[in-house]
Order: sequence, then structure tokens, then C-alpha cells
Amino acid sequence: MVVGAGLAGARTARLLHDEGLRVTVLEARDEVGGRTLTRPLGASTFDLGGQWIGPAQKRVTRLVRELGLATFPTFTEGTKVFLDGARRRTYRGDIPSLSIPQLLRMQLALMGLERQRRRVSIVDPMTAPDAERLDAQTLETVRARYRLDPATRGAMDAAIRTIFGAEAADLSALFFLAYLDAGGGFMSLAGTRGGAQEERVVGGTQNLSRRLLDGLDVHVGEPVLQVRQDTHGVTVQSRTLHVRARRAVLAVPPTQRRTIAFDPPLPAARADLDRRAFMGSTVKVLALYDRPFWREAGLSGEVVSGRGPLSVTFDNTSYSGDQPALVGFVVGRHARELTQLSTEARRTAVLDPLAQAFGPLARRPSELILHDWASEPFVGGCPVSLFGPGALTSSSHALRAPEGRLHFVGTETAREHVGYLEGALESAERVLTEVRNALQTTGL
Amino acid sequence: MVVGAGLAGARTARLLHDEGLRVTVLEARDEVGGRTLTRPLGASTFDLGGQWIGPAQKRVTRLVRELGLATFPTFTEGTKVFLDGARRRTYRGDIPSLSIPQLLRMQLALMGLERQRRRVSIVDPMTAPDAERLDAQTLETVRARYRLDPATRGAMDAAIRTIFGAEAADLSALFFLAYLDAGGGFMSLAGTRGGAQEERVVGGTQNLSRRLLDGLDVHVGEPVLQVRQDTHGVTVQSRTLHVRARRAVLAVPPTQRRTIAFDPPLPAARADLDRRAFMGSTVKVLALYDRPFWREAGLSGEVVSGRGPLSVTFDNTSYSGDQPALVGFVVGRHARELTQLSTEARRTAVLDPLAQAFGPLARRPSELILHDWASEPFVGGCPVSLFGPGALTSSSHALRAPEGRLHFVGTETAREHVGYLEGALESAERVLTEVRNALQTTGL
Repeated sequence: MVVGAGLAGARTARLLHDEGLRVTVLEARDEVGGRTLTRPLGASTFDLGGQWIGPAQKRVTRLVRELGLATFPTFTEGTKVFLDGARRRTYRGDIPSLSIPQLLRMQLALMGLERQRRRVSIVDPMTAPDAERLDAQTLETVRARYRLDPATRGAMDAAIRTIFGAEAADLSALFFLAYLDAGGGFMSLAGTRGGAQEERVVGGTQNLSRRLLDGLDVHVGEPVLQVRQDTHGVTVQSRTLHVRARRAVLAVPPTQRRTIAFDPPLPAARADLDRRAFMGSTVKVLALYDRPFWREAGLSGEVVSGRGPLSVTFDNTSYSGDQPALVGFVVGRHARELTQLSTEARRTAVLDPLAQAFGPLARRPSELILHDWASEPFVGGCPVSLFGPGALTSSSHALRAPEGRLHFVGTETAREHVGYLEGALESAERVLTEVRNALQTTGL
Repeated sequence: MVVGAGLAGARTARLLHDEGLRVTVLEARDEVGGRTLTRPLGASTFDLGGQWIGPAQKRVTRLVRELGLATFPTFTEGTKVFLDGARRRTYRGDIPSLSIPQLLRMQLALMGLERQRRRVSIVDPMTAPDAERLDAQTLETVRARYRLDPATRGAMDAAIRTIFGAEAADLSALFFLAYLDAGGGFMSLAGTRGGAQEERVVGGTQNLSRRLLDGLDVHVGEPVLQVRQDTHGVTVQSRTLHVRARRAVLAVPPTQRRTIAFDPPLPAARADLDRRAFMGSTVKVLALYDRPFWREAGLSGEVVSGRGPLSVTFDNTSYSGDQPALVGFVVGRHARELTQLSTEARRTAVLDPLAQAFGPLARRPSELILHDWASEPFVGGCPVSLFGPGALTSSSHALRAPEGRLHFVGTETAREHVGYLEGALESAERVLTEVRNALQTTGL
């Protein structure tokens, strides 16, 4: 059986079903899809959760096609905007418009990170040279060595915040480097064309989980309270159901695993990881407009802002073009600050920088959605669970190790593209192999 | 009403009762006392949780007396042992026997920390000069600047691990300094005579909570599932009870608060703190012997070991002297490593260093208890919840702020002696004032 019907759980359930196994899926939320969440808005449908696919993400690209879905490119034509406090600058290319010395320092920092990340593997981060020393520092400590000026720091902060939903001060330097490595490097994670934000899914990404689970035995609204292992199998108790199975696949984020009572308890290293993981803080902002006025002004819709509250925005117009839209992210500390404001003050806080970037028309969206993932039940944040210093050093070996009849899936356990849809799928393939091997060896 | 019957909850309940208020207490565990836990062992009773009181801890000293309990000094006569890998050295005084250059560096590091901690107040750590930069670093990053040699580092690690149940790499430098400040400095927290380990309570510390709650309306075995606030009061739903009250005092560790559903949800900053807090990892080791053979050899029973698995030990003989005993701590990474071993291997892992320090007699305790607080239901670790980098910067203002009709108590919220019995009592006094003020202003 599978606990959790996000993309990782859905893909695992489908793979096990295709293997000829009987699979039951329990999902705590009232719908499947986890951190993918598609809603009809304005004249189209939009993703309130994960929405992008990059060219290096082969599994999800293939799956989209297999499930009969289509992709289309993120709109990137035109000039980009860099907001540095009250200053507004426009640029083209990948890196915000900075002075030559600023650019050199930024490049130096990026090259330094690139060199370091190539030595750190997500599969086993503790084998990196100097792994323990790197895990004893924050990303902020490592970055401080490059002595970036405020504008350059700001541009980099915007990218870090958007990728992780966190601050450089929150993250273990080792975890950061391993994560970069899993995703192909910093510029690849931050980029649109050629990067992780290159393509979107027509009709929304939640359809992936929906279609994968089509025809399977799925029960929504069933938060799991207890998982008990014995010599013959696993008993899973949810709100109203009691499921007995040979094996259980846990497809819930590590941070949510803490709410399940395990009998026997999970071993110390895994419990330690679950206890130390924290979800990124992300408020996804969708602003729908009657006209794509930024395109008409020669702007691509992409904004980078070092000071927040919006860290980045992109054009998010619907596939047909019928519903012009911008998408933005309020992330890390800005998300925590934003969600302490009244509803009206939150709107103003995101409309101000949009107007600064795109002009007064941006102040009048036909619809404005601020989706706070931190308050989403049974998820508790986005895009992914994170580790501060020290956690990997103690317990990284437990990240994806099966525990008796329990298997652990989810983008957090991926060996490629952690934190992305692709990672969820990679982890499902690993668990399929685990279960196959277990059934072959033990027959159970 | 009060949720949680650890020392903070017990003291708050008693204070509110003495105010003439009707107080109901719900406790998740089957007994009161939280992280104080007293058990009959051998010829006496011993504390498996918090057991010491320091001279600076005025409230708990007074309370012990008021409740008719007595204290007695931790035994410290004789020579101490410093284990540095295979090397065994003896010393007297507070700092393990190191060479003169080692001692100088250690003093320099301690003085540096002392200077820094005086600038950081636990009451409002973000007002410290450079607070944000300090919170963006780990304690390990700060300490690495002092370039300590392995032996000196080890001695310091042993103290850090024992105080926090964590590694220097796990802790925000700012959190560490604020914690030191709350407790009167590093040497005071690490020390026996004149320090936080000076006195013990005859009969055990769990009696404090028991006696405070004597005659009050206490329900054990009632984990709280939901806390709902409305304009007229608070409704608390536990396993079998449904309690309606004007106000609710939450006396559970921040890490346990995550398992309660709050309606309305807790504000972002508090939720962020609760999500980021992690409990220290501590296995408390009690070794009972027929004779205090270490005393007979002129040893005090105090060992400091930089390499683990035991970080420190002390003499722990019963008040009457009838039951000779040693107490030790396996903490931080060593706790995580130890609890992955078999029961037999765990015993060997702690008996080996005891024998190295005290000779072969130490290998044959009449009873050996390894109490792993991480696996203790509804507690999840000891001594205290900790913060890695970044958490205070984002959300420290929410640490002890009441939220409507909810008040937050516990040693984690203390303004003095955070992490100690004293801190629990200090926080109870603060909440009494909060509730008094609220009742006076609103009458509710």
C-alpha cells in the first residue's frame, strides 16, 4: 500500500499496480496531487503549486507525453527587470544588470559554488571531501567569503529564496551543494530557457497524479495516524480505515512523517532527519490581467528583486493566450513577514513591486491569488523539506533506506532533481526496485 | 486550563489556582513531570531526566524548600579524568588537563564567547549588535576561528554536547550566545560547584511537579488533538475529553505543538519557530554499583571525553550513600549513533569508556540504565528545543507572545536559565502576569 497521493505516491502506486500487485492508496488531503494543485481561474486553469519542467528532467517530460498531456514554453521574450530597492534596471540574458565589477564577483561566486558542488553528490553527500566541515556551516557563511555588494547579494538571494523557499542563513552549505548537484547547478535551477522553469504543462500538473491514479483504489480524506509492522506485514490505521498489506510505501514529506505514530518507532537516524527537516516557506502569487501589457511594453514578465517581498516573477499567461497572467514568489523570510499582514496589506505588498516593475496597470489585476503553502494542511510548506547545518552529518545515511517493510519515496529522497516533479518520479523508480527485490528475496 | 503537566505546566496551574481560578490540566503522558522523571532503582530513587540545581537558580531553590523537599551537593571531591581518545589524563579544577598553549587557546575562546554573550540577551536576541550575522552562522563557524587543537576542541565539544544535546554544527551562534546569557555563561552552565550541576534534590525532581499538582484537577493520558479559539473562550479536545475554558496555557515543548491542530492556525512566525525547533538528543546513562570504587581511588567520578560516546560523567550516589552510582550523558551525534546499535552493543559502548576512566570494576554495574529521551512519547528529546541558524532572525519575536486566549509557557520561553528547571518556573511567573493582566483588562 501507499501512504500519500502526491506525484511520488501516485507514480509509485501506478508502477506497483503495473507490476501486478494490489495497491491501496491513502491520502490525507481531500484530493490527490500533493504539492501540485491546479485550479480554474479567470479564463483558464493555473497551477498553485509546482508547475515547471526543465529539459534535463527526462522522466517527467516522458510521463507527460505518456499520459497524453502537452507542454508549452514559458514566455521569455523581451527585456527583464531587476529591482534593487527603489532602483529599477532592465537587462537581457540570465544575470541581472549589474556593473562590471559586480558581475565579475557574481561570476566568481557562481564558479566557486559550481566547483564545490561538483564534489558533492546527492546520493551520498558525506563522501564529499570536507563534507563534515561544509555541513557545519550555513550557505551564508560560505557566501560571505565572496564579499558581494548588496545589489549582487540581492540578486543571488532572490534565486536562493525562490529555489528553496528559504534564506542562505537557513541552509547547510553541504545540503545546498548536494541540492545544486542533483539539479544540475545553480544557473540551471534558476533559469527559464534551458533551465528548470523552461516548460509548463497544458491544463496543469495536478493532472499527472490524477491520471496516474485513475482506476486505482484511492481513498482521500484519510490522514494516516499509525503504521505498525510485524513479522507478517504492515497495518496502517487512517482516520476511518484499517489497511493490512505486505509492505507500505510512505509518500509523505519528512516533516509530515512526524505526525504518524510508528510501531516499532523509526530508527534514531531517520527520526532525527524527520525532526530536523523543515519545509520551505513559499507564497505563490498569481495575478491575472485582461491584457498582457508587459509584453506590449517589450518586457518578458521576468523580474528579480533582492529586497522582496516578491523575489521573482515570470509571465504566466495561459497556453491559449486567453488569460494573461504573471506569477511571482514571496519566499523565505518575506513569506513569513507577508503572512503576518492583513489580507489587504498582503495585496498591497505584492502589487507595489509589480507596479514598480511593470507600471501602474499592474496594480489592477482582474484576480490576485496569494497561495500560502505553509498553511496548507498535510503539506506545511513548499517547494521542499530543507536541512540546516548538522543534520546530514548525523543521519544522511537514513535518507532513503527502507526500514523493514517500509519504503520511503518523495522528491526529498531523490537522487536527481530533488525538490522537483522529476525527483518525485526518480524516487518512485527506486522504490519499485526496492519492492521488487524484497518480494523476490523474501517473497513478502 | 493548562495543556501539559511538566514542571512549567504544573507551576503555572498551581499559580493560577492560588489566584482563585478554576484550572484543569491535561497531560498526554501517563504521569506528570515531563522531562523530570524519577524512578526507584537499586537501593534508592534516581532521576532519568533533569536532576540538578545551580546556586544562581533562585526560584527552583526556593520552590524545593517550599514543597518540603531537600537538596544535597553533587559529590565533587577528588581527581577528575579527561579522556582524549586512547589517552587518559587526570586533573583538578574546572578545565580538563591540557598543555599550557592549549589552555591559553581554550581561555581565549571562552573569553571571546563570554564577551559576545554579554551583548546578546535572551529576552530579545535580535537587538544584539550584529544579531542577524550571528544567526546566519553556526556555533562551529564561530568556534573554528579560534583554531583549537583536537584535544581542546574535544573538551569544549563535551561541554556543548552535554549542555544542548547537540553539536556545535547544529546550533545558531546567536541562539547559543543567548542561551549562555540566560544561564550565566559557559563555565556556569558546564560546572558542578558554583555551576548548574551543584545540587541534587533528595527523592528526585519529579516530586516538584507531583506536589505542585497535588489536589488539582489533572487528567493524564490525554494527548491534546485540537485547540479552538473563539470570541468567548477556548475549546480543547483531547483523546477523550472536551474542555471549555476562558484561556489556555500551552505547556508543551514547541516541537510537540506541531502535533496539535490549532483553529485558527497559529500565526506564521510562531508556526515557523515550532517547525524549525528540534529537540536535543540525549541518552542519560545510570550505572549503579555495590561500592563507590572511584571514590576509594581518589576520583570524583567526573569524566570529560571529547570523542564520546559518553561526553561527561559525574558521581551520582544516592543521598544516603546507600546506592553508589555514576551518571553519564551520551549526547548529540553520539546519541544518534548509540541508538542505532543493539542493546548489547549499547552497553559495551558506554562501559568501555567507564572502564577506561575508572578501571575494570566499572564494567560490572549492578544495574545499567540507558534512557533515550528521543524515543520518549510526547517529549521527543532532551534537555531542550534548539534552533539552528536563521530561525531567530525570522521569528524570534513570536517566542513567548500570547496569541489571543493562548499563552505559551515552558523552559524554552524563559528569560532566564532556558533549558533548566529554573527556566520553567520563570516562564510560569511570566504567564501568571499575562493571564492576570488579560483578566483585568478584558475580564475574560
